[in-house]
Amino acid sequence: MAETGGFIGKSVPRREDKRLLTGKGEFVADLKLPSMLHAAFVRSQVAHGRIKSVDLSRALRSPGVVYAISGPDLAKLLPPVPDTQLSLPKKWTTRVQHTFLNPQQPLLAYDKVRHVGEAVAVILAESRYLAEDAAELVTMEIEPLPAVVDPEAGLTRDSAVLHEQYDTNLIGDFAIAKGDVETALANAPHRMKRRFYHHRYAAIPMEGRGVAANYDARTDSINIWSACQVIHWLRREASTVLGMPEARIRCVALDVGGGFGVKGHVYPEELLIPYLAREVGRPVKWIEDRHEHFMSACHSRDQTHDVEFGFDDDGRLLAFQDEFLVDCGAWNPIGSGIAYNTAVHLPGPYKFEHFAVRSKIVATNKVPNAPYRGAGRPEATFAMERVIDLIAAELGLDPADVRMRNMIPASEMPYRLGLPYRDGEPIVYDSGDYPESLRQALAALGGVDAFRDRQRAARAQGRYFGLGLGCYVEGTGVGPFESATVRVDPTGKIYLAGGACPQGQGMETIFSQIVADAWQVQPDDVVVALADTSVISIGFGTIASRSTVNLSGAIHTASQSLQKKVFAIAADMLECSPADLELRNGTVGLVGVPGREIPLARIAKAAMPGWDNKRPAGVSAGLEETAYFEPPTVTWAYATHAAIVELDVELGRVEIEKYVIVHDCGVVVNPMLVDGQINGGAVQGLGGALLEELSYDSEGQLLVGSFMDYLVPGASDVPHFELKHMHFPSPLNPYGVKGVGEGSAIAPPVVIANAVSDALSHLKVEFNSTPIRPEHIVTAFG
Amino acid sequence: MAETGGFIGKSVPRREDKRLLTGKGEFVADLKLPSMLHAAFVRSQVAHGRIKSVDLSRALRSPGVVYAISGPDLAKLLPPVPDTQLSLPKKWTTRVQHTFLNPQQPLLAYDKVRHVGEAVAVILAESRYLAEDAAELVTMEIEPLPAVVDPEAGLTRDSAVLHEQYDTNLIGDFAIAKGDVETALANAPHRMKRRFYHHRYAAIPMEGRGVAANYDARTDSINIWSACQVIHWLRREASTVLGMPEARIRCVALDVGGGFGVKGHVYPEELLIPYLAREVGRPVKWIEDRHEHFMSACHSRDQTHDVEFGFDDDGRLLAFQDEFLVDCGAWNPIGSGIAYNTAVHLPGPYKFEHFAVRSKIVATNKVPNAPYRGAGRPEATFAMERVIDLIAAELGLDPADVRMRNMIPASEMPYRLGLPYRDGEPIVYDSGDYPESLRQALAALGGVDAFRDRQRAARAQGRYFGLGLGCYVEGTGVGPFESATVRVDPTGKIYLAGGACPQGQGMETIFSQIVADAWQVQPDDVVVALADTSVISIGFGTIASRSTVNLSGAIHTASQSLQKKVFAIAADMLECSPADLELRNGTVGLVGVPGREIPLARIAKAAMPGWDNKRPAGVSAGLEETAYFEPPTVTWAYATHAAIVELDVELGRVEIEKYVIVHDCGVVVNPMLVDGQINGGAVQGLGGALLEELSYDSEGQLLVGSFMDYLVPGASDVPHFELKHMHFPSPLNPYGVKGVGEGSAIAPPVVIANAVSDALSHLKVEFNSTPIRPEHIVTAFG
Repeated sequence: MAETGGFIGKSVPRREDKRLLTGKGEFVADLKLPSMLHAAFVRSQVAHGRIKSVDLSRALRSPGVVYAISGPDLAKLLPPVPDTQLSLPKKWTTRVQHTFLNPQQPLLAYDKVRHVGEAVAVILAESRYLAEDAAELVTMEIEPLPAVVDPEAGLTRDSAVLHEQYDTNLIGDFAIAKGDVETALANAPHRMKRRFYHHRYAAIPMEGRGVAANYDARTDSINIWSACQVIHWLRREASTVLGMPEARIRCVALDVGGGFGVKGHVYPEELLIPYLAREVGRPVKWIEDRHEHFMSACHSRDQTHDVEFGFDDDGRLLAFQDEFLVDCGAWNPIGSGIAYNTAVHLPGPYKFEHFAVRSKIVATNKVPNAPYRGAGRPEATFAMERVIDLIAAELGLDPADVRMRNMIPASEMPYRLGLPYRDGEPIVYDSGDYPESLRQALAALGGVDAFRDRQRAARAQGRYFGLGLGCYVEGTGVGPFESATVRVDPTGKIYLAGGACPQGQGMETIFSQIVADAWQVQPDDVVVALADTSVISIGFGTIASRSTVNLSGAIHTASQSLQKKVFAIAADMLECSPADLELRNGTVGLVGVPGREIPLARIAKAAMPGWDNKRPAGVSAGLEETAYFEPPTVTWAYATHAAIVELDVELGRVEIEKYVIVHDCGVVVNPMLVDGQINGGAVQGLGGALLEELSYDSEGQLLVGSFMDYLVPGASDVPHFELKHMHFPSPLNPYGVKGVGEGSAIAPPVVIANAVSDALSHLKVEFNSTPIRPEHIVTAFG
Repeated sequence: MAETGGFIGKSVPRREDKRLLTGKGEFVADLKLPSMLHAAFVRSQVAHGRIKSVDLSRALRSPGVVYAISGPDLAKLLPPVPDTQLSLPKKWTTRVQHTFLNPQQPLLAYDKVRHVGEAVAVILAESRYLAEDAAELVTMEIEPLPAVVDPEAGLTRDSAVLHEQYDTNLIGDFAIAKGDVETALANAPHRMKRRFYHHRYAAIPMEGRGVAANYDARTDSINIWSACQVIHWLRREASTVLGMPEARIRCVALDVGGGFGVKGHVYPEELLIPYLAREVGRPVKWIEDRHEHFMSACHSRDQTHDVEFGFDDDGRLLAFQDEFLVDCGAWNPIGSGIAYNTAVHLPGPYKFEHFAVRSKIVATNKVPNAPYRGAGRPEATFAMERVIDLIAAELGLDPADVRMRNMIPASEMPYRLGLPYRDGEPIVYDSGDYPESLRQALAALGGVDAFRDRQRAARAQGRYFGLGLGCYVEGTGVGPFESATVRVDPTGKIYLAGGACPQGQGMETIFSQIVADAWQVQPDDVVVALADTSVISIGFGTIASRSTVNLSGAIHTASQSLQKKVFAIAADMLECSPADLELRNGTVGLVGVPGREIPLARIAKAAMPGWDNKRPAGVSAGLEETAYFEPPTVTWAYATHAAIVELDVELGRVEIEKYVIVHDCGVVVNPMLVDGQINGGAVQGLGGALLEELSYDSEGQLLVGSFMDYLVPGASDVPHFELKHMHFPSPLNPYGVKGVGEGSAIAPPVVIANAVSDALSHLKVEFNSTPIRPEHIVTAFG
């Protein structure tokens, strides 16, 4: 018999890979349903305008078209939901001064169009080809309005306003602070001001969005398949839009080809397609094409920070003040989440007393802004880590030294930051050693002094090397909760249903490892069911680096509770006390007495209701428990990224010679998968730093329409990442884990900006904006 | 606001009818899956023989054929399960002397064929037409063996043996008794012996069997749709055959067009189709055609009773001894169930001390015998109710009087019979008034005396009227258990998932009534999910008139338990004690204070895990409870059927002038549906009495192949049934209900036999066999 126990911490191969590598994965695009119709959207070609009329008549006569509807017509059938208050935790709303307006995006634009790509009508036809052909026959009359493209200009009195009910484009505004930043700045020996701009780019998963729905008239119920991260959220919204109990709606995410946050909220298309499927009585599918993805799936980042900071002669940060604008696009699907993340992640691993930040969320005529891997943290880290380098430059110190001087020492952990997290709880960095992560990173680069010697020598020969650092902390595993149902199958296998909703992370693998250890069985003896509302009625979903933390906690609670029952039954069968029992290779056995054991399958049979059951008195029938893990608050992962780059000053190219990541996500369930997350995040971070950009012209026209003009990193653009792990367990959850999904995308932009600034430090140029383009480097040389 | 409460007892219209009457029902035959293959079986044309070879080569070359396999080849891939002990309750096995052999029917016959129609090979093709064409190209070499057609001959020493591992065709044998039947018979003033034969007929639902399966390689799971009554049983067997955890198997019964017991166990086809679907990696469907149904779906009845009985001069039954043979066909899928039902239902509503019965279950080369509406009770009632009439005839008493004299008086209820039921519990007739049911029936017929006058007068004119009575008791609602999950949906609707598995009875309606009353909501506010293993992990299914009894009990327990939680949350919100609260129109309100109430939807929201939840301390998250109702034992429904018939002595036709049914199934949930059950059962009972017969020739060839030679009653064959209800609640379950699904099919055969015997009493002919054919009546006149 194979050994059990100790699967947590092993690089168990991904159970998902067998199907994915043999072509047996199933994505929503693969889903075939009998008589299925295909949807194509008609999207706005102007950034801002008033819809006067939409003419579907030619489209409706087009071959194969079964149904078409425009926004204005849909608004008559399904009156748009009035603007609603976002659901924010009370602990937060009572602790943070804020104003949020919450315009509700309709399923189709009906009164105005507010960005290029906003859907105005939809066509259903027998094939996607026919639907697209018909979509081109739709004409609409739109009265143009001035486009709000620059958020700063959008706040001026004479700007056009997107959401006229508010008379302003300022749809979110909040401030948090600690200490007395005004006074501290006034008294600081040194005081500087800078503007930092983190540009607009996006997740761009391999698979775009996609949704299919099938209404079952027999049971008056509907199945929705969506390539999304939050099926329970989708079900909740579908319940409202369709006017159906949640119990009649099943939402499933099949295999999903990447999410990274862009699929982490509910889009209008995900609600409209089910509505149409019920309306026409046939299955309907819509698969977003890449062109649509650029103009309708959410973008991210896009913040402008005006920072003022004070420091002493030793480079110690004394005060930090930031007012930043979020270019939110036309709608704000997840409300304050990103901006608040930015605000509280600004202090990073540094200890200083005086801090104030104000955030303004501005509606513009662009694609809405929503989380993307990091979700507001890359912007914060960019600002703070540039500030540290600027302090170093100002004082002639080494950036590494300035970091060391400012970092929270390990002896002060857990560290109370003095600000509330977005769950409303006071932020406490729970475990770790930030200076050590920096030390290890510098050591892996060969030490700072050696590099400086080399840098100087090279510069004399016209070669330009730079060292860039990026240190951050990251609140992960945020609540409110995640759910797990654990069941002992009649075969003795352990069944897990969970509210997490994967997009390729390998969750089936890691949760099988966790369950295997919790039950002392093999991972292959664990059946894992995720991303299906029919397997667990309450669930949250996979966003915010939360699933490993929260679902493992729920697995733990459910298993503990179920094992009490299992032990009670086994004790009765073995005529002993439950305290004398242990889980042993798929059995419950008497401690120290090999051979005296009952297979879990027999215990499951004994637990059945009815005749001849072997349940002791007071033990209810069935072996199934559902639990909800409600984390006390977030747990703090952190890392140091460090790179040495060389600039090709003629081509403006940034060559990454070495890139080191020292990362701590607590207890690691599957090292191989954690490495994958870290590598993948770093690649996306570099893409944002150097290549990817969603730019708009002054009319609000998106200048990107395909991978021809939106560059994502290819294999040849990416260095080898040298990974080092630290393992400070989190005290906040049973397995000591911390989230790892987003972290690694946070630092690369500032690492590159710092490295390039460092390489050109003799020119006194500062790289305070992303992306860092070849022309910026070439231009630096005048 | 509409009133709530009091839906139990109302003829709420069937919610199923909207879809069924508008063509939106979905039966397994309607199911379309992409790339679905269609199966056709090659079935044995001989009754008994040894399989030498099966040649599929021509079939495999036939157009559109994708896969074909024979029994011998399948046996190499899936070794047949060895004969296993049936799972019988220990309480029963220790109380009843028995021997059962349990030959396991393979998925395809591989060593021998044992009845005409047994499947030997299966073809999968792109359409059913192509599959059928290919099936005709299969040739097989079968060494013929003598057919065992007569069960009595099958028990002789020189008979061929179906299951050679046993050396006998006697595959079941048990005896139960009370008192001292030998002595009582010896001492009885009168002693008679008769043989009664209840012929072979079957359920013949409008929809035959059907199964479809779809293997999902992504999740290594399988969906099985089967037109069956026991999806959880199907899942359990599929788990064994497929070697998959139950958690990876979902079994669903869509709309099912009648079951009546014939779909109440698992057939080889239901396991083979999923196996093939996984094997070929495409969905596979098989729909039984009517011809196949006759030769492969189980038959029923077919018992020969040799009864000896003793009675006194007043017609009081003193002793009853019965040895009966069950012609079991080639396999015995549900073991002792039918035969044991027959044994314990023989005493009926009568009180006598000395009773002995022995049952022999004999394997023959016919379609296997399995339950059909009544499941062994019609045979018992036929024997006993003929006995009562024979006593009356012998003593020159009126059969009604003899019944009255023998019946258990209401004053002796509850009545302890002195025999164990098949759950092993002592039989106790729990509530009712049997003589009153007889009195009401006779009154509805206009009284016995008036009839006798009329009968005499008519006979003088060459017209022959007869009065037939049939009284029975029926154990209903047998365990072991049924399961219910009750959930308060976030919309405030109440969701019920149950283990019952309907076939058209209207369960969605009646359970919505029960839940509505339990929660004080409208039936339309109840979402009912049945017949789907994905909605409830442990369930039993719908057989044996058990679902209303058992599922209502589970609903009650789950609701009580969930309401405690609901009240605790509401009490916290209303700042009062849970004891001051009541359910009120979809809210929880303060008793006596209108307006002080919280909608269930708000309570569901408050019960959510996570931030800002309003659960009081100690109340777990979520509003869902699962409960199992494990009935203490069966509850006893009963009825008197009474008919006046006139014989057309030239055509031999039985004209039913009046047919009265006085029935007690305790508390009635939906009177309209109960009437439907009673009418439908009586129609099927009359079909068995007069028309339907599955006859075999001496070679074991089934002489019935279509509705041309198997007559089921049409509208013009059926009288108006006059229904009367008595309502003695059962004390054994929360709602006082008793089962009603089967009852009414029990009495008609003996009612007709008694009526016809009565009509021809002057000729001293006895109708002791079914069916009663025109030729029997014509022949009676010599």
